[in-house]
Amino acid sequence: MTLFGIDNLPYGVFSTADGVPRIGVRLGDAVIDLSRLDLHGVFRRPALNPLLALGRPQWTLLRAQIAELAPVLPAIPLTEVRLHLPFDVADYTDFYSSEHHAANVSRILRPANPHLPRAWKHLPIGYHGRSATVVISGTPIARPHGQLNDTDFGPSARLDIEAEVGFVVGVPGSRIATEDFAEHVFGVVLVNDWSARDIQAFEYQPLGPFLAKSFATSISPWVVPLEAFATFPSPPQQPRPQPYLLPAGPALDVSLRVQWNDTEVSVAPYEQMYWTAAQQLAHLTVNGASVRTGDLYASGTVSGPAREQAGSFLELTDNGTVPVKLADGSQRGFLLDGDTVTISATATGARGTTIGLGSVTGTVCP
Amino acid sequence: MTLFGIDNLPYGVFSTADGVPRIGVRLGDAVIDLSRLDLHGVFRRPALNPLLALGRPQWTLLRAQIAELAPVLPAIPLTEVRLHLPFDVADYTDFYSSEHHAANVSRILRPANPHLPRAWKHLPIGYHGRSATVVISGTPIARPHGQLNDTDFGPSARLDIEAEVGFVVGVPGSRIATEDFAEHVFGVVLVNDWSARDIQAFEYQPLGPFLAKSFATSISPWVVPLEAFATFPSPPQQPRPQPYLLPAGPALDVSLRVQWNDTEVSVAPYEQMYWTAAQQLAHLTVNGASVRTGDLYASGTVSGPAREQAGSFLELTDNGTVPVKLADGSQRGFLLDGDTVTISATATGARGTTIGLGSVTGTVCP
Repeated sequence: MTLFGIDNLPYGVFSTADGVPRIGVRLGDAVIDLSRLDLHGVFRRPALNPLLALGRPQWTLLRAQIAELAPVLPAIPLTEVRLHLPFDVADYTDFYSSEHHAANVSRILRPANPHLPRAWKHLPIGYHGRSATVVISGTPIARPHGQLNDTDFGPSARLDIEAEVGFVVGVPGSRIATEDFAEHVFGVVLVNDWSARDIQAFEYQPLGPFLAKSFATSISPWVVPLEAFATFPSPPQQPRPQPYLLPAGPALDVSLRVQWNDTEVSVAPYEQMYWTAAQQLAHLTVNGASVRTGDLYASGTVSGPAREQAGSFLELTDNGTVPVKLADGSQRGFLLDGDTVTISATATGARGTTIGLGSVTGTVCP
Repeated sequence: MTLFGIDNLPYGVFSTADGVPRIGVRLGDAVIDLSRLDLHGVFRRPALNPLLALGRPQWTLLRAQIAELAPVLPAIPLTEVRLHLPFDVADYTDFYSSEHHAANVSRILRPANPHLPRAWKHLPIGYHGRSATVVISGTPIARPHGQLNDTDFGPSARLDIEAEVGFVVGVPGSRIATEDFAEHVFGVVLVNDWSARDIQAFEYQPLGPFLAKSFATSISPWVVPLEAFATFPSPPQQPRPQPYLLPAGPALDVSLRVQWNDTEVSVAPYEQMYWTAAQQLAHLTVNGASVRTGDLYASGTVSGPAREQAGSFLELTDNGTVPVKLADGSQRGFLLDGDTVTISATATGARGTTIGLGSVTGTVCP
């Protein structure tokens, strides 16, 4: 069984030997070149943005057309293509919506006050990131330099990952009700929000993380349409959220597998996230802020209750104090130069099959 | 004496009755239509970005050419043009680099721990904002809604301003030395980073301000080239900054006047800022993050030591407890619906004359 069958059909941007980036869908281990169709003029482009701007009715129509046409169009093996950043990122926002992650971070980093932040259960806490440094999977990750404390400047010694699910905005809007989530959000990517914990600890008061997270954010090359996912009831929320955050909207059953070099070190359950993607979008825009075509917002680190469900190495290794053992016998607290992290994911698809989200990978260089 | 003489020549985007946005320079109370020249193909455009991308040698050459040509080209009175957002904003970053402002905020908002944040004198603290909501001067400011505490959702009751100086990046780069500041930064605008203090207080831990500042950031329409400014030694810094932040780079002698309806309520001295714009750019990129053409980064609220030098109403009114009296006899703590705030500025120009930065204005609506 392929994870990229006709139930999935994620969009991406690829080029072949001719070097011309264009739009394709993945089917099995091949890419179907949609620029040959150029329906609505959106496929002969180097980025998905014109497709993203079409809106839900056209997205649905195109998906149905492609499902019919893709199997009979020429397929280019994945091994013969180069994949590019699938869309031009407008604003990038990152949330903090896993209760297990937030509780772990509070316990590890703020032991004197190990509770969730005061507002945490009232609203999906988030921050704005740097869209210039959202990069395609496979881009090497240069270890960031920064101030580590009052006296030391140098390369981060606590380089970490954050395994996340990202949402790609298609249709612009403001004050978007949770019910209108699927009218605005086109699809889903995987996100690794690389984080330098030592830089973060020194700089983050009172305006939040800055250099600790602005050097690179990797995303997976395939944008899986929202329609490809089965939807499930989201977890209960107590206290009851403000009306603008209700109804909560659906949960997606996405399972993220984190591989550190050759070793799978955790499996993180997105379906347990406290705040849904619909609530995040409603919150992001309730103050009148607008979203644009190409905006990316991410779930925040996905962590489950168990250590082997951690979406960050900060949690997996208890801030480096409980090293994880890799298959080659070596041990790790945080990332070493040369290490590769690959986050891959599968999900329950709308027709009950399992669909793939592909993977996002990066190798640390000095 | 005009503040917009041949020593200034700021660039902007304007349209006339024909509705076609194009590039002009301001000379006196008129706009010179540069699209008639279209040197280097950069002026017949709806945004300054292609001009910004040219780089310092071309900027200098063009400025010399325009200084010769502008006085003999047809001038369109300012009253007959509409001004537009002068450039497409890529990433927007905001700093926090006035020691007086940071000290005031610590005293007012964190009285239990009224010191500067631990890292404050070691690095220019900043955060990423939302580029989608950077708007041109004159855009109405809708009072934002948000969660004000554990139980209340509604319009902000503590809507504030932040008077700032903004820097427009022309040439992309990463790890930019302070000495290379002028090779990358094209010019200067005025910024009002509208802020909802009640929303901010509830949401900002631990990831920084989010909805409190993402609803609107207004900028002035004229981008004053860096070459138009005289440069001065920047204030001493103790402890000595890390090498990547040295030499500190120049200070600019910009004086910001804040007008609340018909009353001038403060005059804020930018030249006293602790961290320079060159240091901010060096810090922003020292971790490997890249800047792009069209990036905007702002100084942070400009405040001097005296209350009547405050760049925010939080400081001017001591968090609303010491209302300011306006010319019409009314009193204000924070902004009321219908209030207009105009921040204007002048600076010492490179030839010793006084040059204008124009103004950034906005009226609060419900």
